[in-house]
Amino acid sequence: MNLPRTLAVARGDEPADLLLRNARLVNVLSGEIHPADVAIAGPNIAGIGTGYQGRQEIDLGGRYLCPGFLDAHVHIESSMVPPAEFARAVLPRGVTTVVTDPHEIGNVLGLEGIRFMLGDAAGSPLDVRVNAPSCVPATHLETSGARLEAADLMSLLSEPKVLGLAEVMNFPGVIQGDPEIIAKLCAFHGRMIDGHCPGLSGHRLSAYAAAGISSDHECVSVDEAREKLRVGLAIFMREASNARNLRDLLPLVTPANERRLCLCTDDRHPIDLLGEGSIDHLVRLAIAGGIDPVIAIRMATLNTAEHYRLRDHGAVAPGRRADLAVFSDLSAPRVEEVFVSGELVAREGRMVHNRRHRRYDHLPRTVHIDPERLDFAIRAMGSQARVIGAVPDQLITHHLTREIPVHDGWAQADPERDLLKMAVIERHHGTGNIGLGFVQGVGLTRGAIASTVAHDHHNLVVIGADDISMRTAALAVANAGGGLAVALGEQELCLLPLPIAGLMSDWEIDMVRDRLQRLLDNAHRLGARLRDPFMAMSFLALEVIPALKLTDKGLVDVEQFEVVPLFV
Amino acid sequence: MNLPRTLAVARGDEPADLLLRNARLVNVLSGEIHPADVAIAGPNIAGIGTGYQGRQEIDLGGRYLCPGFLDAHVHIESSMVPPAEFARAVLPRGVTTVVTDPHEIGNVLGLEGIRFMLGDAAGSPLDVRVNAPSCVPATHLETSGARLEAADLMSLLSEPKVLGLAEVMNFPGVIQGDPEIIAKLCAFHGRMIDGHCPGLSGHRLSAYAAAGISSDHECVSVDEAREKLRVGLAIFMREASNARNLRDLLPLVTPANERRLCLCTDDRHPIDLLGEGSIDHLVRLAIAGGIDPVIAIRMATLNTAEHYRLRDHGAVAPGRRADLAVFSDLSAPRVEEVFVSGELVAREGRMVHNRRHRRYDHLPRTVHIDPERLDFAIRAMGSQARVIGAVPDQLITHHLTREIPVHDGWAQADPERDLLKMAVIERHHGTGNIGLGFVQGVGLTRGAIASTVAHDHHNLVVIGADDISMRTAALAVANAGGGLAVALGEQELCLLPLPIAGLMSDWEIDMVRDRLQRLLDNAHRLGARLRDPFMAMSFLALEVIPALKLTDKGLVDVEQFEVVPLFV
Repeated sequence: MNLPRTLAVARGDEPADLLLRNARLVNVLSGEIHPADVAIAGPNIAGIGTGYQGRQEIDLGGRYLCPGFLDAHVHIESSMVPPAEFARAVLPRGVTTVVTDPHEIGNVLGLEGIRFMLGDAAGSPLDVRVNAPSCVPATHLETSGARLEAADLMSLLSEPKVLGLAEVMNFPGVIQGDPEIIAKLCAFHGRMIDGHCPGLSGHRLSAYAAAGISSDHECVSVDEAREKLRVGLAIFMREASNARNLRDLLPLVTPANERRLCLCTDDRHPIDLLGEGSIDHLVRLAIAGGIDPVIAIRMATLNTAEHYRLRDHGAVAPGRRADLAVFSDLSAPRVEEVFVSGELVAREGRMVHNRRHRRYDHLPRTVHIDPERLDFAIRAMGSQARVIGAVPDQLITHHLTREIPVHDGWAQADPERDLLKMAVIERHHGTGNIGLGFVQGVGLTRGAIASTVAHDHHNLVVIGADDISMRTAALAVANAGGGLAVALGEQELCLLPLPIAGLMSDWEIDMVRDRLQRLLDNAHRLGARLRDPFMAMSFLALEVIPALKLTDKGLVDVEQFEVVPLFV
Repeated sequence: MNLPRTLAVARGDEPADLLLRNARLVNVLSGEIHPADVAIAGPNIAGIGTGYQGRQEIDLGGRYLCPGFLDAHVHIESSMVPPAEFARAVLPRGVTTVVTDPHEIGNVLGLEGIRFMLGDAAGSPLDVRVNAPSCVPATHLETSGARLEAADLMSLLSEPKVLGLAEVMNFPGVIQGDPEIIAKLCAFHGRMIDGHCPGLSGHRLSAYAAAGISSDHECVSVDEAREKLRVGLAIFMREASNARNLRDLLPLVTPANERRLCLCTDDRHPIDLLGEGSIDHLVRLAIAGGIDPVIAIRMATLNTAEHYRLRDHGAVAPGRRADLAVFSDLSAPRVEEVFVSGELVAREGRMVHNRRHRRYDHLPRTVHIDPERLDFAIRAMGSQARVIGAVPDQLITHHLTREIPVHDGWAQADPERDLLKMAVIERHHGTGNIGLGFVQGVGLTRGAIASTVAHDHHNLVVIGADDISMRTAALAVANAGGGLAVALGEQELCLLPLPIAGLMSDWEIDMVRDRLQRLLDNAHRLGARLRDPFMAMSFLALEVIPALKLTDKGLVDVEQFEVVPLFV
C-alpha cells in the first residue's frame, strides 16, 4: 500500500483512482447493508462514505457490493486445469481468494508439483493461498509418486503464499500421537492447521482438536458439526462435486455460531464449476435454504479471512484489498462485476482480459507404464470374492461378498450382474504394481473407463466389462501422459488428455468441460449408471474412506486398515 | 503443552490432572450453554465431554463454567499498584488476561518503566500482555519524563508478552501522515495496532482506519460506534472509573455485530476495582442491560482473544489454556472460582495463595522539584482570564472566560466563586517549569490537593484555594517521591505515597483503596464537589482532550492545539 496516497484519498484531498458510487454495501463487519460510496486508491480501499471524487467513477445505481468471495478449502486439481486457468473460471463468479491444498499434484510430483502450482498461480489476479499437504502419501497401503515429510513441508514455510498445513487426514495418527504426523504439526506451530475427520466424535475428537487442528470440512450432519463446533473446530460447509453437504448443514447455522462457519468447494469438476458455479453457488444455496444473505455472504468472506488471519481480505473497509463483487439480486446473488486489487477483472461472467494460458512443458512426464506388463487376468483362488460396492454420490463404499464366475481358473467380470473388473496400476515409478478386484454399482454393460485421477495416489485406475476394453482405455490414458478415456474393445471412444501430472489439462477449461461431458456421454452409452463414473472411480481407490477400496497394493479393508485377499 | 500427555488425557487413556465435572459450559465457540465435563492436562484443556477420570475431581454441580475474562485495554497504573498486585485484585473476579498499555509509566520512565511492568507481571498468574505505548509524550505541549520513538518501541518487539502498538491517540498525525507516527505504525506492521479517536467521523475516520488502526475504545454513542464498526474498527466498550460508556453503547449490540465488540476497563481506580469489579462488572452491566449472557461473556472472552489473535485464550476447548471462571447466577455472574493454566488461583473473591508483594526499590526516584523555586504567584496581565471549566464525570472541559480578582498586581483565587488556582509543575527533569492557571467546578472552599498522577506527562499538579495550602500539598507529594495529598494551610491532612514512578504504591491494594478513600473524604470536607477530584485533576492537565487544559508549558487551547495566554 502507498500509505500517503491512500491517506490523501481517504481524507478526500486527492481523487480516488476508482470511485464506486451508490453501492448498497454488504458490510460484513457491521453485519448490515447500507448505502455507501467506496473510494479506491491503488489496490486498496481508502474510504467509505460520501463526498468522494474519483479519476474513474462507476455508478452502481444501488446494486449490491460485497467483498470478493474466499474458498476456504479447494483442490484446484479437481477442476482439471492449473491455477491460472482455474482462476478464469472462478473470478467471474466473484471468487477472489482461494485456500488450496495441492495434495493431488503433491502425491504425483511432490514439492516440484506444489511449486508448479505456486508459480502458475502467480500469473493470475486470483489470490491463491496454499496449505502444505499434510498426508502425502495418504497411507502406506498405496504407492504414490512422492513422499512429503515434515522437513519437506518446512521448506514451504518461506513461500509468501503458503499459509499453513492442509487437511490432516491421518486423524488416527494425530489422536495416537504418531511421531511423523506430530512432527508435521510441530513444523506448522503458530500457523493454521486444517482438519479432516469424517464422523470423528467423543474423546477422539477432543484429542484431535487438542493437537491444534482448527477446522473440519467433512461434516455430513448437523449433529456431527455441532459436536465439532463445541470442541473448537471451525466448520467448513462443503458443496463439492462428489460430496454435497451444504443443504444438510444449513440448519446448523445460527447467529450465535455463524462466525465459526465457512464455505468451501473442496473438489469441483469443470462441469459443475462452469455450470453451477463455485462459492457463489454455495452462497445462493445458503440463501435459498433460508440463511440471511448477510450471513451467507459473511460465511463466504469475513469468516474465512478471519480463520486464516488474512487481515486484508474478506471485508469492504478502509485499508483492505479492493477485492469486490457486484450483484443485483440479494435473494440469489449472481456476480456481474468483479474487482481485484481495485482493477475490474471480470464482467458479466467473463474475464475482461482473456489472456491465453501458458505452456506447461517444463513438468516431467508422470505416467510410466510398460504395456508389455499390463495384464488384468485374475487367477481364481475361490469363487467368493470381496467386492467393492459403489454408492451413488458418496465416497464410502460397501464391503460386499459375491460369487464370481470362473472360467479355466480365471475369475471373470459379469456385466449382467453389474460385476465389473477394476485395476489400479502403479504409474509413477514403473514398478509394475497392479491391484485387481471387482466392483459393483458402476453399471457398465460393456467397454471400460480409465483415469490417472485417483485419490490420493493418482495411479492409473481402470474399470471394465472385459480385459481388452480395459487395456485399450488404460493405454489411451498412458499414451497421453495421463487423462481420462472411454474404450470399447480395441476402440478408443473418447479421451481427455491430462498431461500436467496426469491430473490437469493444458486446454482452456471450457474445452475440458466439453470433452469431459463427451466422456460421460460415452460412458453412459456403455451403461454406466452413476452420474459421474470417473469421479466415483477416482474415490474407489482412496483407502482412507470406508469400507473396501483398491490400490496398487491390492484390496484394502479400510476398517482393518490392511490389505486383504480378494477371495474369501 | 506436553502434547503426548494431553492427547492421552483427551483419549481417556490417562486420568486428567484435574476434572471439572457437571459444568454448565458457556461455550463461546458454539454460542450455547451445554452440560460438560472438562478434562485438564497440565496447563491445557484436553477434553470436553463425558466419561473422563481425573486425579483430582471437582463436581461443579451444574454451576456455570466460562473462559477466564480478558480486558481488551487497561492502564494498570490507574489501579495505583503494579501488575502483580493488580492481578490480586482482578484474578478473583475471573479476569485471567489483560492487554495493558503501560503508557503512564512510559511517560515517566520510558522503556525502563515498561520493562519494570513486564518484569513485575511475570511473577503473577495473570497473563499480562503489553501493547507498546504509541504516544509518549502525548504532545509537544508538555514535558514528559521520556520520549519513545519508533526505534525505542521496536526494541520491545522481541518481548514475548508484547502484542502490538497501543492506542494511537495522535489521530490527527495518523490522518495527515505525520512521518513520526507513520514510522511507529510501520514498525508494528503485522501486529495489532489499537486506536483512540474520540468523535472521529467521515473521511478522517476512513483515513485513520486505512492506516491500519484496528480498534477504538472512545465511543460514547451508538451512532459513533456504528460508523466506526462500518469502517472496520473493533469497538472496545469501556466502563472506566472516569468514563462510563458501556450502558450508552449497549443498544449497539446485535447478534450480527457482536463479534466485533469487546469489553475494556481502560482506567479503573482501586475503589471501583475492589468495589464494583473489573471486566466481571462490565459483564453484569451488559446482562442487566438486556444483553444475552452468552454474548456478554463472549464480548469479554473470545472476541478479545480473536482480536489480539490469542489463539489459546478466550474459549473452553481442547488445546486451549485452562483459564476458567465458575459462577452460579447467569443473570449476574459473580465469579466463585478461578483457574489459571489449570490451577485454582482464587476462590470466593480471594487469592488462594496470598503471596506478599515484592519490593520495588530498584526503580529510580522520579520527582525532582526544588522547593525554593516553587512559586504559585500569578502576575495579573489583565482582569479577564481563560479559566478551565471542569465537567463532572467527563474528561472534556469548558473553555471559560472569567473576571479574576487582582491584589497588588497579583491574580488571586476566589473560592467563593469556585475559582481555584491550578499549577502543573514539571517533576521529571527539575527544569523548574510551572504552568499556572485557574479552574472552576472543582469546588474546594479551602485547602489544596496535589498529585503526581496527571495524564499523560504525570507532572505534579496542584489545585487550591490559597498558595500556602498548595505549597504544602505539593511538597508532601514531592517528599514522598510522588503520590496524592490533601493539605490545609501548612498542615498535610492526608497523603498516599506513590513511590513507584509517582504513579503506583508499594502497598497492598486494599490499603491503597482505604487511603484513597480517606483522601477523598478529606477533599470533600474541604468543599470539593466532584466525586473524585483527584481523578478529575489528573485529566485537567491532559492537553489532547478538549477544550482548555493546563500543562507545565502553560494553558493549552486544545482546539487550536497551542499554548495560549492566561489573560485575554
